[in-house]
Amino acid sequence: MSIDTVEQINRIFYPGSVGIVGASSREGSFGRMFLEGLMKMGFERIYPVHPRDTEMLGLKAYKTIKEIPHDVDLAILMTPPADTLKIVGECADKGVKGIIVFTAGFGEKGETGRKIEMEIATTARQHGIRVIGPNSIGIYCPSSKLLSFPQGLMHGMPEGSGPVGGFSHSGSFVDYLTYILSRKGIRFSKVVSCGNECDLNAVDFLEYLEQDNETKILIAYLEGMKNGRRFFELAQRVSKKKPIIVWKAGVTEAGARAAFSHTGALAGSKQIWEAMFKQAGIISVNSFEEVVDCLFVFYHLPLPKGRRVAIVSGQGGTGVGTSDNCVRLGLEIAKLSESTRNRLIEKLPPVGATADNPADIGVAVLVQPSLYGETIKILDKDENVDMLLVITDPGRPCTQSIVEAAKSITKPLVVVPYALPELVSTEYEFLSQHSIVTCADAKRAAFALSKLTDYASFRSATATNR
Amino acid sequence: MSIDTVEQINRIFYPGSVGIVGASSREGSFGRMFLEGLMKMGFERIYPVHPRDTEMLGLKAYKTIKEIPHDVDLAILMTPPADTLKIVGECADKGVKGIIVFTAGFGEKGETGRKIEMEIATTARQHGIRVIGPNSIGIYCPSSKLLSFPQGLMHGMPEGSGPVGGFSHSGSFVDYLTYILSRKGIRFSKVVSCGNECDLNAVDFLEYLEQDNETKILIAYLEGMKNGRRFFELAQRVSKKKPIIVWKAGVTEAGARAAFSHTGALAGSKQIWEAMFKQAGIISVNSFEEVVDCLFVFYHLPLPKGRRVAIVSGQGGTGVGTSDNCVRLGLEIAKLSESTRNRLIEKLPPVGATADNPADIGVAVLVQPSLYGETIKILDKDENVDMLLVITDPGRPCTQSIVEAAKSITKPLVVVPYALPELVSTEYEFLSQHSIVTCADAKRAAFALSKLTDYASFRSATATNR
Repeated sequence: MSIDTVEQINRIFYPGSVGIVGASSREGSFGRMFLEGLMKMGFERIYPVHPRDTEMLGLKAYKTIKEIPHDVDLAILMTPPADTLKIVGECADKGVKGIIVFTAGFGEKGETGRKIEMEIATTARQHGIRVIGPNSIGIYCPSSKLLSFPQGLMHGMPEGSGPVGGFSHSGSFVDYLTYILSRKGIRFSKVVSCGNECDLNAVDFLEYLEQDNETKILIAYLEGMKNGRRFFELAQRVSKKKPIIVWKAGVTEAGARAAFSHTGALAGSKQIWEAMFKQAGIISVNSFEEVVDCLFVFYHLPLPKGRRVAIVSGQGGTGVGTSDNCVRLGLEIAKLSESTRNRLIEKLPPVGATADNPADIGVAVLVQPSLYGETIKILDKDENVDMLLVITDPGRPCTQSIVEAAKSITKPLVVVPYALPELVSTEYEFLSQHSIVTCADAKRAAFALSKLTDYASFRSATATNR
Repeated sequence: MSIDTVEQINRIFYPGSVGIVGASSREGSFGRMFLEGLMKMGFERIYPVHPRDTEMLGLKAYKTIKEIPHDVDLAILMTPPADTLKIVGECADKGVKGIIVFTAGFGEKGETGRKIEMEIATTARQHGIRVIGPNSIGIYCPSSKLLSFPQGLMHGMPEGSGPVGGFSHSGSFVDYLTYILSRKGIRFSKVVSCGNECDLNAVDFLEYLEQDNETKILIAYLEGMKNGRRFFELAQRVSKKKPIIVWKAGVTEAGARAAFSHTGALAGSKQIWEAMFKQAGIISVNSFEEVVDCLFVFYHLPLPKGRRVAIVSGQGGTGVGTSDNCVRLGLEIAKLSESTRNRLIEKLPPVGATADNPADIGVAVLVQPSLYGETIKILDKDENVDMLLVITDPGRPCTQSIVEAAKSITKPLVVVPYALPELVSTEYEFLSQHSIVTCADAKRAAFALSKLTDYASFRSATATNR
């Protein structure tokens, strides 16, 4: 990709003005949701286009994009598939620089649709226009006040941008992810729904986010790949600077079939993808929740120096079972130093507790919850410990003790309240407000920490090799 | 095990009276928590034993168990390890029928402790007394109003018993499990913390629960096994009537080491356990949350007729990724009949949705949430579909539509609200109130359904072979 493409994508993320073709004032329509949402975000130069209406939610509306008496940098098309090619031509005449085609019903529906997509791309390219979509829900770029994701538009998004950038072959994936994680304090740089990729594709967005200074962590949901080789070469370079969390779906035969119905992508074989991921240092995950968990650990935690985990619980059994799960995922159970063990022996009750790793505080948590914080602080100081996984009673005395301890510790820490999250939502919120990473289950916590560790060792290996 | 042992365990679960040696009125002590908790449960004949106090929370207290001028069926010992053997002797003189040793600090601390345990067992056996523990938090048996689990004692338990019975090498496992799941509507028959098993052990409780009419589903957390061969022979017989969900911890080397510190158990090799589990029809899981998820599906859902799953989502990407996860776990993605596909095509929008399996309702969920319920009802009627996994937008219109549809469907259904549970706790609660199984993530939902399916095929294979 040339600097041109980076620059062209940049114009889409930072347009001076936006035309919405297919905007509507009709309650319950997508055309209205987009228009209203963009206005709420505070974006100022919006030009609705509608065949009949001349005014819309207080804005002047135009019959065609060509009639707009101002420059239009970005056009969002929500028009029927049959009209789209013609409107792309009008955008070209108008001097538009970027187009997002929200409309679906192209390549994912068969060969006819695929041909129209190709014509859209060809027409646009001839005029120096870059296209996102079709079948794309668009982009989210808080620093330019641009948002076209439905959940965010309906429910509102918080102020401010942050370090997470991403691209996705599923619109709803980024739609829900950005909306949900905004409510957990995560902030985003640029996120894009790639759609059917008639022009700009995942490779382009990867290269764009590589050089984007706002973006420090990348996420992607992928089904297939237009240019797999290029993607992995690039990913290997990007991974040395920024972690890339990828959920690659469609890796089983059934999943591949589903992916084809969804975006028309050919999903490729599981083995090939996994080998490529590993070589490229990509953090590979297999569910929405694993994306979320990994994003939390990469967002909030430093990279561990090694793979030795210390486990703390007040529930001996869960501590034992969690050490199994850590080992299965390639972590090691830290062998505590003699002095750490002695300090734990001093603190913990002589019976019904285990002053080792896993450290089991036992039933004493009920009467002496501060033991959580004290145990964490002791373990953090052991040079044989690289990270901490804490399973806690979800009562406020225990979580409070952890929040206090977390202020002084230096190693990655993940906390799992030992209860179903929906029953103790206030404790999740409390921990989250103090930027403490929580996971809904200890197995997922072990998974996220193992990914943080794998990435840390990729980074240190590539740093050495350079 | 003889009928005697069943009868002897029955006397522990249904004692006419309980002596608590080491009861206390001191605020914050375990002795008080137990006494107070048992009184709150409504158990009537409680005799506290204390070396000095003569009265406790309105009850008369006795210096020794021998001084109690009434029959004492069950004694709970919370006394220091050094005194325990002597008190067991006093219990024998008193004619006690069962003893629970809450006190820890025996076999799990080394050889000396193990010897004392053995003497406790020998003394008890000579007098026809059966012992649970030491290092046991006791039992929960709502139908006899007996509870000695700390979480339940502190926070209270709901009225009523139910079909879930269990036994565990970790006290806190059953403590938290019974407390947490009670709040999700699950009800229990008899649950026991086995502790160090100086006398009664997991095999005995398995056989007891086999013949217990209240118990329909069994759960167990196991670290090691005193009599593995007998356990598996028995489990194979029990599984043909009642599902047994087992979390076997200590299966990796590190986990085995942790298990030894925890309860002194030798945990055995992973491969052997897994082979035995499969042959015995045991539902094998690897985390607290997997126990919870499996318990929900076995509690609420019928067994599926085959392994063909239909997936519904409003988020195409997650549908695709979930079909991967279902296939990885041995489920099949159902091939919908022609008529089902036609009915879906009629209902779902022509673009931005997929009228197949996975069914993707797409962004239309935002404006037409009833599509969830309609899609579920159509898929339930397809004879190629054995079960339903639904990933839903967590807004009330969508969950309401699912609750309505669930009233008429006949196949197993698991619902995953597409958001972090702590952010949408009211929707989890709403679905749960309508006895709809929810999972915190779609991968876990696929796992629980795969276990329900594996068990269904074990049941039908053993039914055929008979």
